[in-house]
Formats: sequence, C-alpha cells, structure tokens
Amino acid sequence: MNNTMKLHGLENLKKANGQELEAALQELIHGIEELDQEAMLAMQKRVDAKIKPTGSLGILEDIAQQLAGIQRTSQPTIKGKAVLLMAGDHGVVAEGVSAAPQEITAQMFYSYFGGGGGINVLARNGGADVICTDIGIAGPLDPPELMENRIKNGTNNMLHGPAMTPEEALQAILTGAKIAAQAIDSGVNLLATGEVGIGNTTPSSALISVFTGQPVERVTGSGTGIKDAALEHKQEVIKQAIKINQPDPDNPLDTMAKVGGLEHAALTGAILEAAYQHVPIILDGIIAASAALTAVKFAPLAKNYMITSHSSEEEGQTVALEHLGFKPRLYFNMRLGEGTGAALMFPMVDAALKIADEMATFDTAGVSTGEFLTR
Amino acid sequence: MNNTMKLHGLENLKKANGQELEAALQELIHGIEELDQEAMLAMQKRVDAKIKPTGSLGILEDIAQQLAGIQRTSQPTIKGKAVLLMAGDHGVVAEGVSAAPQEITAQMFYSYFGGGGGINVLARNGGADVICTDIGIAGPLDPPELMENRIKNGTNNMLHGPAMTPEEALQAILTGAKIAAQAIDSGVNLLATGEVGIGNTTPSSALISVFTGQPVERVTGSGTGIKDAALEHKQEVIKQAIKINQPDPDNPLDTMAKVGGLEHAALTGAILEAAYQHVPIILDGIIAASAALTAVKFAPLAKNYMITSHSSEEEGQTVALEHLGFKPRLYFNMRLGEGTGAALMFPMVDAALKIADEMATFDTAGVSTGEFLTR
Repeated sequence: MNNTMKLHGLENLKKANGQELEAALQELIHGIEELDQEAMLAMQKRVDAKIKPTGSLGILEDIAQQLAGIQRTSQPTIKGKAVLLMAGDHGVVAEGVSAAPQEITAQMFYSYFGGGGGINVLARNGGADVICTDIGIAGPLDPPELMENRIKNGTNNMLHGPAMTPEEALQAILTGAKIAAQAIDSGVNLLATGEVGIGNTTPSSALISVFTGQPVERVTGSGTGIKDAALEHKQEVIKQAIKINQPDPDNPLDTMAKVGGLEHAALTGAILEAAYQHVPIILDGIIAASAALTAVKFAPLAKNYMITSHSSEEEGQTVALEHLGFKPRLYFNMRLGEGTGAALMFPMVDAALKIADEMATFDTAGVSTGEFLTR
Repeated sequence: MNNTMKLHGLENLKKANGQELEAALQELIHGIEELDQEAMLAMQKRVDAKIKPTGSLGILEDIAQQLAGIQRTSQPTIKGKAVLLMAGDHGVVAEGVSAAPQEITAQMFYSYFGGGGGINVLARNGGADVICTDIGIAGPLDPPELMENRIKNGTNNMLHGPAMTPEEALQAILTGAKIAAQAIDSGVNLLATGEVGIGNTTPSSALISVFTGQPVERVTGSGTGIKDAALEHKQEVIKQAIKINQPDPDNPLDTMAKVGGLEHAALTGAILEAAYQHVPIILDGIIAASAALTAVKFAPLAKNYMITSHSSEEEGQTVALEHLGFKPRLYFNMRLGEGTGAALMFPMVDAALKIADEMATFDTAGVSTGEFLTR
C-alpha cells in the first residue's frame, strides 16, 4: 500500500492539517455525479428486448440499469470485486455494551488474513477479494505494517465525550476513500462494505438514531448476542452518549466524530470514493447502513451508487435503509457482520449483467411478442 | 433419455395400466424418509465451532444442516446441479386467462434448448444445467424426439370438466419422477424446479386455493401481465372450475387431475423423487409452490427436502409457502417463472456448504470464545 498516493489534492494524508483534510473532503463530495440517464435508458432498451414479459426480472433489471448509469455505458462489465473490511475498536465497550471481549477484534482481523473468516469464504464464493484495513484497533498488531492505516487505538468512550476529534474522523473518512481508490486502481469495479469491531453496533445505532430521528430503542439490537437487561443498558448508554455529545444531525462530520466509529468513518469515505469514481458499492448490515446514511448526508448523490444486500437481524439497519428509500433483497436472518450479507449479493450482480449480455431477444429467438411485451 | 428405465417397479411407464401406475406412486411416496437427525446434529456441531457467534449465519447454517440431514452425512457435498424445466399447455387459456398467446410455450421451449432463456443464463450463473421436458405442450415440436415424454397435447379446459384424467395426471407425476431420477443418475444432487406454460398460473392458483382453503381472490395474481377486469375474469374462471370439478382437497391426485396442469404434476413427481433419493430441491415460484403443496399432500415428509428461493410477485406463492411453514429468502420482485428465482439460490446453497468446509474454527484460529459462543 502506498500512503503517499495523491488523494483529492492531498500529497500525504497522515501529515495533512485540518484545513487540507477539509479541502480534500470537499473535493471528494462535490465530485460525485448523477447517474448517466442515457446509458440507463439504453440498458433498459437492451433488457426490454429479451424474451420475457417486460420488467419480469425485477431487481435484476434494476441493478443492470443502475450499473449502466454508474459506469456510463449501456454495456457495463464487472472486472474485479472486493470487500473493503475496516477494523476498529470502541471505547464504549467499557460500558458493557457487547457480549464479546475487545481482544476479539484483533483476533478476527488476523483470521481474515488467514482466509478463514466467514467473509473470506463468502467473498470467494462470489469471486471477490477481501481487503482488510486496521483503521483503529485498540491493541498492537504484529507485524506493525498491519497498522499503517490506523488513525487511533480505538475510539474514546462516547459516554464521556466525543468518540473522536473532527480531525480524526476526517482522517478516517479519507483513509477509507484512499483504500477504495487503491482497490479501484488495482482493477476492482464492484465494491462491498465489510467491518469488524467489537461494540460497533453501538455507534451504528447512535448514528442511525441521530440521522433518522428515530428513538434509540427502535434502532438498537442485540449485536453479537446481548439480551434483555443488557440490551436495555446498551440503549441507555446510547441515549446518554447522544445527550452528552449533542451531535448535529445536519453536520455529518460532527455526528460521526461524536458518536461514530473509526470503521464507520472509513466506510463512509469508501462509499464516497466509490461514488466519486463511478463504482457501485454493496451495503452489508447495520454498520454499513449507518455509514451510508453519513455518506448521503455529505453527498446526497452517493445514494445512487449503493446496492443493498441482506436484511440484518439488527432492526436499526432496516430503519436506516427505509430512511434512504432502500429495501433489503436477501432474508437470511444473518447477524455476523464482516460484510457477509453483502458478499452474498455478488452472484446477484453478476446475474443482472449476464441477463443483459447472454439472454436472447424476441428478434433473435423467434418468440412472438403479442401482448407479452406490455408492462 | 431412456424410457424403459425401471422406476418404482414399472418396466415401461408409457405402457403401464392404472393399477401399475398407482402401485408405483405408492412405492414412491412410502419410500420417502425422515432426515438423518444424527448427521444434522453433527453438522450443527461443525458449524458451531466456526469463528462467529452461534447461529449468526442464519439460514446458511440451516441449509448446511438440512443438506447434512438429506445426504445423511456431516460432510454433504454438491456434485452437480440442475433445473428440471417442465413445459405444458393449458386448455383453460381458451377463456382468456393469459395475456400471452399459447404458441409462446413452444417458442420459449425451443429457446431454452438454444441456451438463451432467462433460466439458462441464471442456471449457468449458479453452475447448473437446465433439463427441459415437454410434458404436455399443445402443438407439435420438431424434431419429434422432443415430445417423447409428452403425456397429452395440453390439458383440457378445466372450466368444462377435469383438466386431465387421473391416469394422465399419474403418468405426468411419474414422468416427472423419472426425469428427476435420470438427472440424479447422471450425477446431479441438487435440483431446482422450472417450468414454462402459458396460462399455468391459473391451475397453480386453483391448486393452492383448494389445498390451503384460501379464497381464489387471495391466491390469484396477474401472471404474465393481465390487469383489472382481466384479473377479475381469471379469478372467476378459477372459481367456476373449482365449483364444476369439485376437487377433493384430501386427494391430491384427484385435485391435480381436475384443476392442475401437466407441468404441475411432473414437478410434483420430481419433488417426490428428489425426496425419495435424498436429494434437495429448490422451489421456484407459484407453479412450484402448488406442486410442493401437492407433493406434501402425497407425502408429508417430502417437505424436508425442499429449499425455498425467491418471493414471487404472485401472492398465491406466498400463501402456499406460508401453508407449508416456509419463508422465501430472496426478494427480487421477479415474475418470469422458468425456475429463474430458484436458480438464484444455487450460489446460496454453495455458500452454506462452504461455510462448513472452509471457515476456520475457534480452536484453529486462536480466537477467544468468551461469551461469544452463547446462543
């Protein structure tokens, strides 16, 4: 990895001051464009010529059109796929919001390098790589190069003040953007979000509550497995953290810094960079959904570059997706995180483009159209 | 294909008399066994050892267990996949229940041989073959060998009497079983249902209404695209057909013969044969759901061999799946039929077994379990 790549005007992300970082963010969010309507119409025409009732392949047709609009061609192709897995720790775990101990974040991070994580298996199944980034694990990693993108050794406990400074949040956002840019440079043009971080459903719920205005109780679930009294306690911690920090819902950087997480920020940046570079990005569960809300607060057009995947067991994800006008597509009762739900969507995106590329048309197949074509 | 293969005691299916056919059906339905509970528990143990909160991969874990129970081993494998596509026509189209003309059935059937149908594309995407059978297209096909499994040139108009004789329905069921058996003999051990037949949502809705006791209005949708008055007319036709024929809901052969279809019967047989031979079968949309209801009426244990796929736009499918205690897993707003929804499930079944085979365990990965393991 190359830390000195030029990113939105920045020569060196780690050494940039607050003003330079802010300028880079502005360049990024203002560079995100509308989809190409002409390419979308051309794709619709291609798909409508196929031997089937118009629209009968539903969301597969929508995805084919979306990819045409994103890639600005009626013949979009998938050249490489990757899950961008961002790892971070959370000071708020000191409050007992998670059933799992913090050291699991680093242990799981290592296991992804070994290829044995759930995300590795499901990414491979979908023909995708997994790109792992330590954006803010709490303890040291070996070898130390694994920590080269780390912004901070875990966030501060948001119950006692902001999880991060605005500069740290900005650094994490732009690092996420950099990781996405590197993946795209290497030939990837279909991304998915992934993450690991014990306690990270807590800031996700906080972000979702702030951005959607929904009560904390509605958007907070059991994470890796807390129940009953522990769940109520988690909700109380989130309510207190919001009360103490007073994040401004109209200021996504302020909100992310105060009640977010380093991996949430990095995924926000990755989503923005994907959109900036005309690359679709598949959203996983509740962490991704909170990052997607943040990204859309920064740049509303970023929404058009997102593809939803599964309905997580975390209700907050559903609320966030609804707020964005999205629906989940896969109902597998999953709650592992890592990007596992998003990875299941890779074969579906493949399928969408194959419909456009491989299916016969009424003309070539000698099938009568009759009223068969009517919408 | 070999018409003289021995199937449930039958030397020659086409020449068998009613008594011989009935005996073969009894042999088939009484040969369907419970899943192997020991293999399922062994698989659960394998999956619970993986580095993840217990149960967090949801339906993928359920499918892995189901396959273990079906294959009677803790190490199930997928060796070959196929969509069994059954094609038939329907006398009831004379009543204007479909927006598409009848000749489309044969035209689409040819296109599947050319590999350009939606089902061909999506089956390929899932690593599966498509096995096409003319079980009852109305007009002649060229070459005539394509018709070798045809039972009848389309069903009779069920508005004026039974769609088929009981013998014809039995022949179609056992032919479906034979096609499944041939696929399994060739090495396939994961099946999916597929079909084509202009007008075939009409008998599907009739079967579902009879078997579930739900009103025709609730289980009847727009098929390939009829609307408003035409939809009401379709519902009226189905109600009349049920009234005139008086199918016995407790007699699946009677019901299938009176208000079913040839492809519905063939899929029923294919499902029963899959179960008989310890092979899982993925259900597509409303036609498959009506066949699944029929199969379960014949042999309740057949249910355990079914895997659901998408939620079709046809409400009747939802009703039928609910009646079986099933939920759809993919929400893609599809209504093409052919088996296209089921084919999207192939990569998911692959994923389920790869979780069991490729994911690291707490032991090997050096990940702490802590409370992480608790359900």
